[in-house]
Amino acid sequence: MDVLTYNLNQLRRTYRKRYENYVVTRIFHRLNLPDLQFVTQQLVRRPTGIALTDLYLPQLKLHIEIDEPHHGNQTEADEKRTEDIIEATKKLDIVEAKGHRIERIRISDAGDDINKFNELIDNLVDEIKKIIEANGYEPWFPEQEFDFSKFLKNGKLSVYENPRFRTIADAVNFLGQNVRGMQRAFFRSKKYPDYNFWFPKLYPNGGWDNKLQEDGELIFERPNNETHIRNHYRAIINDDTKRIVFPRFTDNLGAVIYRFMGIYIVDKERSSETEGIIYRRVSSDFNL
Amino acid sequence: MDVLTYNLNQLRRTYRKRYENYVVTRIFHRLNLPDLQFVTQQLVRRPTGIALTDLYLPQLKLHIEIDEPHHGNQTEADEKRTEDIIEATKKLDIVEAKGHRIERIRISDAGDDINKFNELIDNLVDEIKKIIEANGYEPWFPEQEFDFSKFLKNGKLSVYENPRFRTIADAVNFLGQNVRGMQRAFFRSKKYPDYNFWFPKLYPNGGWDNKLQEDGELIFERPNNETHIRNHYRAIINDDTKRIVFPRFTDNLGAVIYRFMGIYIVDKERSSETEGIIYRRVSSDFNL
Repeated sequence: MDVLTYNLNQLRRTYRKRYENYVVTRIFHRLNLPDLQFVTQQLVRRPTGIALTDLYLPQLKLHIEIDEPHHGNQTEADEKRTEDIIEATKKLDIVEAKGHRIERIRISDAGDDINKFNELIDNLVDEIKKIIEANGYEPWFPEQEFDFSKFLKNGKLSVYENPRFRTIADAVNFLGQNVRGMQRAFFRSKKYPDYNFWFPKLYPNGGWDNKLQEDGELIFERPNNETHIRNHYRAIINDDTKRIVFPRFTDNLGAVIYRFMGIYIVDKERSSETEGIIYRRVSSDFNL
Repeated sequence: MDVLTYNLNQLRRTYRKRYENYVVTRIFHRLNLPDLQFVTQQLVRRPTGIALTDLYLPQLKLHIEIDEPHHGNQTEADEKRTEDIIEATKKLDIVEAKGHRIERIRISDAGDDINKFNELIDNLVDEIKKIIEANGYEPWFPEQEFDFSKFLKNGKLSVYENPRFRTIADAVNFLGQNVRGMQRAFFRSKKYPDYNFWFPKLYPNGGWDNKLQEDGELIFERPNNETHIRNHYRAIINDDTKRIVFPRFTDNLGAVIYRFMGIYIVDKERSSETEGIIYRRVSSDFNL
């Protein structure tokens, strides 16, 4: 996707909230840096649950929240289930942890005075310029979105780097398989024989009622039929292999992606014949 | 309505078309003149029919068209019926007539290159700045939107000044009545006894199938029932009074307004017992 099309789609996503559309387009057009990626309405996974930041600039790890009246609604909550969620932090306070910071536009501070409102936004634009002056940033090229060389350089996949793959084949080939395409969602790694790859749908689908716990630590896998739950439990409960898990999500423009979520094992104590199989995360990293 | 709320609503109106949203918000935020009124998706009545300009800056009489693929659709055509339409010109070429000018953003000129696209828009912003430097403009205050002193100064109402009133009472009190409120849509003027005031709905409503011809020259008034057409025809055909006509429209943010459309009389040749009563415009001005 080219930079223009990407931004046309990102900026339009804000239309439901008129303040948000105004703020995001003003920051975008006044900052005027096409190689700085804008992500609108980014879901962020935190220990306290999932948060939504109205604008996220990934290169700067900067989140901007717009305190618009009537923020959040049921439609959003429903959409969350399948949507891509980045991992920002392990800690409670997003500002402290993993170098992410958050800025707020407090709409009520402006009353309904357009000059004051513009000033609030323009001050934030100046703030962003200062961050850029101080730290610079790696230019963003959307065609390099699925360039994984940085993970190779780091020697590991880390959920905090938010590794995302377009296809199952892309993910497993990066980890040593050699396939053209892959229809299956669960299979053994050739390069890492102690591990299985798993690409689950962690939302209700087909005969399954799967779920990812909001903090990302547990996966609930359960057929939505009592007999199947029991059979599935008996088939899986003694599986001691580790799973490299890439759940299937849609990104915020609606495209399918597989995000690395960490290494999980069957949690034998939590799992049961009534609740189904529960997997516990044992690591947020995978060493290459 | 305050300037901020007005613009939040205007800018959001563009969301259906992603290029338009991008262009309009970029012009708005880079021009950065809150006392310059932005009107998005302005309908314009021209001798060739009704046109839609994507952005209209009334103080500069400047229209901006954004050549977006798939421009215009049936929904818009349907909405047109009740919507407020400004009178830009008597002539075919909007650029020459009545001081209105038009600028175009040709999206295809940019390919999908965001830098070229921004440059197209920024060139237009520079163009607007030049127009302002050369001619200046009267600052816009939305609370003065229904200030009619300029019509008094001109000594006439002219459709090309686009006079609009919030209520029937406002319109007739400006023309010499003295009423608090007015439920009726047709009644005699006290100050100008040769004239009747008329505030018609020129779209299908209740038992009526009324219509304003696209160029504004004819009004079709017709009950949607054969017996009623004949009775109505017989009651009205010999009416020789002149009508000062303010059809009821909604402005582009959905509020009701009554726009002065000129002086009309019954067109006895065009009217018939089958087609109903047809009124012909005899003047676009009314001398105060």
